[in-house]
Amino acid sequence: MRKFLQTSFAAMIFSIVGFGTMAAQGNVAEEIKAANQKLSDCVAAQDADACIALYTADGMFMAPNANPYQGPMGIRDGLQAMWDSGAGAVNLTTDEVEVFGETAHEVGRFVLNGKDGSHMDHGKYIVIWKHEGGSWKLHRDIFNSNMAPR
Amino acid sequence: MRKFLQTSFAAMIFSIVGFGTMAAQGNVAEEIKAANQKLSDCVAAQDADACIALYTADGMFMAPNANPYQGPMGIRDGLQAMWDSGAGAVNLTTDEVEVFGETAHEVGRFVLNGKDGSHMDHGKYIVIWKHEGGSWKLHRDIFNSNMAPR
Repeated sequence: MRKFLQTSFAAMIFSIVGFGTMAAQGNVAEEIKAANQKLSDCVAAQDADACIALYTADGMFMAPNANPYQGPMGIRDGLQAMWDSGAGAVNLTTDEVEVFGETAHEVGRFVLNGKDGSHMDHGKYIVIWKHEGGSWKLHRDIFNSNMAPR
Repeated sequence: MRKFLQTSFAAMIFSIVGFGTMAAQGNVAEEIKAANQKLSDCVAAQDADACIALYTADGMFMAPNANPYQGPMGIRDGLQAMWDSGAGAVNLTTDEVEVFGETAHEVGRFVLNGKDGSHMDHGKYIVIWKHEGGSWKLHRDIFNSNMAPR
């Protein structure tokens, strides 16, 4: 009986962890897609505060052709540089998400359009997400272009 | 007694998992640094086969200004494009590693030198690593420059 109880207990732990992990993967992917939509919205609105709030407290925006922009002040500079370059809207497409507890990573593609709606750039990205303060936030965000240098 | 046994059993599982995780983080970081040194070596030697062997079977080399290079044939093309551009050696510095079982991610910095030893580029990267076939391999590898466009 003692052995049976131990085995059942172990099986129970495994079941809860296993089921929880599977369910979490799907839910987190949806939460990440929703956060990406918020990022697209605040980029289009040129609302730096709303964008910064989507990053962790020590989040890093790792844009091409610049040193990494880190933390709220840094990310504000990075966003401003993007807007100053003429960027008006970004569309994000999630290709892969893997979730590990409070951390997840995402591989995806972006399309960047100018303020007049013209195509500016398109490429690929990796984001490391952290579950912080009750929501999934961008922690490390790197991307580059698929286009030839202009 | 039954309750005590269950509690002890749970504590034992927690201890093994907890200790294993801590030890694994350090070991994996060292294994990843060793794999990065192998990558530097094969880039310097222009040995495509040795470099390709460091990537997973469906690994993705996500270089700037090109579509993602995926799988052995794709990665070969990406490496050749890098060598054709004059690249001779790359130095990699690991800043952050987090390990989740058979997956890890790394954030780091690179310096790229030409075949004549001159500085070509420097920047930042994220690599998603997978433990595949007994060793840690690059699975998703993205980077971009910190330098202004030339």
